[in-house]
Amino acid sequence: MAAALRQRAPEIIEANKKDLEAGRAAGLPDNILDRLTLTEARIDGVATGLETVAGLADPVGQVLNGGILPNGLELKQIRVPMGVVGMVYEARPNVTVDAAGLALKSGNAALLRGSSTAEHSNTTLVAVLRDALESVNLPADCVQLLPCHDRASVTHLITARGLVDLVIPRGGAGLINAVVEQATVPTIETGVGNCHVYVDAHADLDMAEAIVLNAKTRRTSVCNAAESLLVHKDVAKEFVPRITKALQQESVTIHGDDEFAQQPNVEKATDDDWGTEYLSLDISAKVVGSLDEAVQHIATYGSGHSEAIVTNDVAAARKFTTRVDAAAVFVNASTAFTDGAEFGMGAEIGISTQKLHARGPMGLSELTSSKWVVWGEGHTRPKA
Amino acid sequence: MAAALRQRAPEIIEANKKDLEAGRAAGLPDNILDRLTLTEARIDGVATGLETVAGLADPVGQVLNGGILPNGLELKQIRVPMGVVGMVYEARPNVTVDAAGLALKSGNAALLRGSSTAEHSNTTLVAVLRDALESVNLPADCVQLLPCHDRASVTHLITARGLVDLVIPRGGAGLINAVVEQATVPTIETGVGNCHVYVDAHADLDMAEAIVLNAKTRRTSVCNAAESLLVHKDVAKEFVPRITKALQQESVTIHGDDEFAQQPNVEKATDDDWGTEYLSLDISAKVVGSLDEAVQHIATYGSGHSEAIVTNDVAAARKFTTRVDAAAVFVNASTAFTDGAEFGMGAEIGISTQKLHARGPMGLSELTSSKWVVWGEGHTRPKA
Repeated sequence: MAAALRQRAPEIIEANKKDLEAGRAAGLPDNILDRLTLTEARIDGVATGLETVAGLADPVGQVLNGGILPNGLELKQIRVPMGVVGMVYEARPNVTVDAAGLALKSGNAALLRGSSTAEHSNTTLVAVLRDALESVNLPADCVQLLPCHDRASVTHLITARGLVDLVIPRGGAGLINAVVEQATVPTIETGVGNCHVYVDAHADLDMAEAIVLNAKTRRTSVCNAAESLLVHKDVAKEFVPRITKALQQESVTIHGDDEFAQQPNVEKATDDDWGTEYLSLDISAKVVGSLDEAVQHIATYGSGHSEAIVTNDVAAARKFTTRVDAAAVFVNASTAFTDGAEFGMGAEIGISTQKLHARGPMGLSELTSSKWVVWGEGHTRPKA
Repeated sequence: MAAALRQRAPEIIEANKKDLEAGRAAGLPDNILDRLTLTEARIDGVATGLETVAGLADPVGQVLNGGILPNGLELKQIRVPMGVVGMVYEARPNVTVDAAGLALKSGNAALLRGSSTAEHSNTTLVAVLRDALESVNLPADCVQLLPCHDRASVTHLITARGLVDLVIPRGGAGLINAVVEQATVPTIETGVGNCHVYVDAHADLDMAEAIVLNAKTRRTSVCNAAESLLVHKDVAKEFVPRITKALQQESVTIHGDDEFAQQPNVEKATDDDWGTEYLSLDISAKVVGSLDEAVQHIATYGSGHSEAIVTNDVAAARKFTTRVDAAAVFVNASTAFTDGAEFGMGAEIGISTQKLHARGPMGLSELTSSKWVVWGEGHTRPKA
């Protein structure tokens, strides 16, 4: 599949041009057009991604659990493919290839429902992948692209109970909510991140500044970016002016509580700000009276994605990591590390923010189910 | 909680009598009335179950995964409680206590929606459990009984997205389908079992007979009971008359294909029979031309619960265990072994027949989620 993508890059770029022209005609913003664009270099990057996935250990067949029961039955719980995995996603055509590669490596068939803005790109990419599958005598239908022009294909996909084993929506909150609300097949919610950095009373303030800046400004459009800053009152006098200045130097707009709002050019936060995932150079900021108040604030407004504490106090760090209920909780590290590649998974199909099945970055293992295989020698179970 | 149940057994039995009277007045069948009945001995059994659960290892905090990343970040994936777990179930009041115990032991709050036929029993049981919680300074609201007289409480429970983390329906297919179809919170399907025993060309026929009889007749009302028998054509001539006689001696009605129907007193199977979970002394039976045909039949009609092959042929056993997609696949053993206690889990909250999160018997671990806890020393992530 990787080789085929590289060989047929000109054809893919040709198809991509049609999407870009249509996108420009429809007045899509530049950042969306950029995400939609495929160049030879980007296609090579996507192909390299496939090679990385191909090189990962095969999750299927891995023994998760097992033993010999007192009655002599040999019990083994092994990983098996999920079966048929659906993806509903927006914009970027590279997701088409990533998802197909991860699904295939974990033994699944992939039903891909991309965005109509990427229709020509996705159609050509999937044709290339399917030809590659057939060239090694694998069934082309392991990878299928669904129609992208109306909602009907999404509705069919997410209600095909018994035929589709899992649907992963990837995109904005609207898309994810629509899928989860209407689905009767199992789904995994991904990607909404209202992530906090809490600067504790016992924080090293140099470290705190570096972590806040990194978590907010490294990439603003990603779900692991910090959207909210909480500062303990004991360090507020020193840290509030300092971090305000540092964030503003990086062009960040601060939506602050009363205490932050006393700083120059800080906007007064409204109630809505605390729950907002800006995905931009904006951050909400608040002074809290205690660690407990920070934990409570995160429980109220957080999305269960990534939360960080900066502290040198062991008791505070332990309390924060225990009490905060999120996919990833960091002590003295940036929320930006919540990522499949950073966590050593080799690849990522999304970041789960739900608690069932998978939580946090999802790699190959998260695309598998399990099965108990039991060998006996004529074992029957006594009546109770 | 166990001690309180034993102490207050007379009060519980008094409440149970009201349910039994109402049930008799409503003309409930004897087997339902029996399942509804609480005696001192049954209450003691339920209390002993709680003590067993209390003695199991605590799943919360268990480290599932971890290591030190190349950049020095310390990564740990640990089990955490799911949060708020809902149960929607029918009839038996002992499920109230079992579910509360398992949820509590795994750190969860339990929202219990039992049947109106057990209203008085459940109300008293939950009152006893809540008093016991308060007596050791745990919040009584860890265990709550929902109103049972209309569907509204179920609807609220299964659509409380963000408040309820998991709902497990336990009961008949109608209840389970209704919950899964309407839920917007994550659910786990349980319990529908159209289980097959396939007697291969290379089966030991004594063993096959013992396994078929055990899987069918040990307990007919449970989801791991065999509902369908498949026999390879090479052994049909000998095995079909033999197993027909043996099953009929145990009062089993056989719904057979053409070949079985040549035996005395075998009913001719209709198409519906192959997909039917009888939960009674009935079994469908068919001769197949090959292992592949058996696998295909199971793929078409099975419910993904428990499937068994009887064979002495290693290649056949390996093929069957690989190809058959079910929660549990047995070689030379009865399907009756699919059970949390048999599998060494100590207790069971249900048997999942879906592939997401849990598959097969669910114990304490299956009532937990996970969380990544990451410790650093001021780590920030470089820009890409």
